[in-house]
Amino acid sequence: MAILSKKLAIAVDLGATNLRVALVSHTGKILKKLKEKTAKTGKDGSVVTNQIIRLIHEVTKNTSLKKIAGIGIASIGPLDYKRGGPVHSPNIPFPFIPLIQPIQKAFSLSVALNNDANAAALAERYFGAGKHLKNLAYITISTGIGGGAIVDGNLLLGKGGNAAEIGHMIVDTSYDLLCTCKKGVGHWEALASGTNIPRFFQAWAQKNKKSQSFSFATAKDVFAQANKRKPIILEFLDDLAKVNATAISNIIVAYDPELITIGGSVALNNPNFTINGINKYVNHYLKLPKIQITKLGEDIGLLGTAAAAFQK
Amino acid sequence: MAILSKKLAIAVDLGATNLRVALVSHTGKILKKLKEKTAKTGKDGSVVTNQIIRLIHEVTKNTSLKKIAGIGIASIGPLDYKRGGPVHSPNIPFPFIPLIQPIQKAFSLSVALNNDANAAALAERYFGAGKHLKNLAYITISTGIGGGAIVDGNLLLGKGGNAAEIGHMIVDTSYDLLCTCKKGVGHWEALASGTNIPRFFQAWAQKNKKSQSFSFATAKDVFAQANKRKPIILEFLDDLAKVNATAISNIIVAYDPELITIGGSVALNNPNFTINGINKYVNHYLKLPKIQITKLGEDIGLLGTAAAAFQK
Repeated sequence: MAILSKKLAIAVDLGATNLRVALVSHTGKILKKLKEKTAKTGKDGSVVTNQIIRLIHEVTKNTSLKKIAGIGIASIGPLDYKRGGPVHSPNIPFPFIPLIQPIQKAFSLSVALNNDANAAALAERYFGAGKHLKNLAYITISTGIGGGAIVDGNLLLGKGGNAAEIGHMIVDTSYDLLCTCKKGVGHWEALASGTNIPRFFQAWAQKNKKSQSFSFATAKDVFAQANKRKPIILEFLDDLAKVNATAISNIIVAYDPELITIGGSVALNNPNFTINGINKYVNHYLKLPKIQITKLGEDIGLLGTAAAAFQK
Repeated sequence: MAILSKKLAIAVDLGATNLRVALVSHTGKILKKLKEKTAKTGKDGSVVTNQIIRLIHEVTKNTSLKKIAGIGIASIGPLDYKRGGPVHSPNIPFPFIPLIQPIQKAFSLSVALNNDANAAALAERYFGAGKHLKNLAYITISTGIGGGAIVDGNLLLGKGGNAAEIGHMIVDTSYDLLCTCKKGVGHWEALASGTNIPRFFQAWAQKNKKSQSFSFATAKDVFAQANKRKPIILEFLDDLAKVNATAISNIIVAYDPELITIGGSVALNNPNFTINGINKYVNHYLKLPKIQITKLGEDIGLLGTAAAAFQK
């Protein structure tokens, strides 16, 4: 797949933790990039909208808007495409963030809005390991967990554009852990996202009657102890690997993909744990796809949403 | 969606228990139908091939082959499309059943082979409740459990044609029950298929320390006791409903469909239990699709594979 436009795209990646805005070439080169913490305080979601508009002005300061093919926004889900933004997103304090309309108005450019993991799947398809493939899935294990699937060459959207919201797939019936989305227990994200790994450790230690003096604030702390080879942590991470492998097994029977790539800060910072754990426990019902950490790193959302902006 | 051919299709539905062969019109009318138990003894899978060829001869006895657009076969999975038949199918004693090549040769007609549940999804799309929909999923709860998904208007196949093999999705981590496919524990089919419901009841009674004098040979026996309102059976069926609802929840986040229809003997014979149980426990993370028992009944596989034969 190739993108024909010789123009540039403005790419916005709205995450629960970080907001990135970039100028991207048609070959998938990031020419300029700005990054801030996503605004979390203020009267409503428009504080985030205004933060994005300010960063777009900044990133295009020395570039004529005539050179811009369009704006692509990769956003945390779930998205309401009619209202044009994310609604009741698990890790965001605002019930709604208006994106399409105000940003279209501010720059008089077309705006392509995609779920962040869907955008990342597009990046893998246009600029990454999936260039020659028709069936692939992308997973992000980050603050939350999300996914995107390319099937028979096209991005799988579903009725509301929320297909492959696989972070909210139920993969556990043992721990009764309520998900960050507050809509159910046993979701993949409820156990294995960056936010929830410390809480899963507490529940795991209690259920398995481990006398333990550890209490973790972040997933990073858990992995730091693992790197010191603490036996209890290694045992916990083996069960976390089973959770990840269960989810990947379910993704395989859902889409029968040729390739699964995994990104997001938890996976990118702990690639060996992630891949080895999945390989150890993944279910071999169907012929396995290639499973690997994405080579597009943290910029994958920006690249994918740029691809979407060029397509529109 | 309409089928343009005015010819007829020969439709074959190869199940683990029953084999059906029919003559189907382009409007989805079954003109003639034969049904036998699927052959389970003999030297190899060719005994099933020969049984199918004999039934096709019988069903077309008074019909010129010139009037036939093609042969469609809906088969239990998983399928190996290169070899042209099902391989190591969980509920079949033969490692392989040759379908495409010998049947093509016997009648000099094109043969369209589809996973049975994929064919059924096509039936729902062409002749059933999904006529005007672009995103739907079909589930069969029968001897085994299978699924098919139509996404953005097309049948989702995946790299090997085995997408939506959702009977082998992991939905339970409490019971450690090995699936009929022998490839993993906790698969939906391992707990909730017709074959496995009696075994799930045993494991459930043991885990929940129910003193019980019931032992069931078939799912039919279990539901018969439920109809007599035996409290222990009703309690068990409530947990079985949770299993089904977990699987349906995962299908919703995988495909975000507008409609899920459910067929297969276990669902068709126990429609209220099936639908009420799912409605009670399904996860509301995304906006729910319509969830209903298929109105195409036991002929859904035949109708779908006829649609595939007309398309080819």
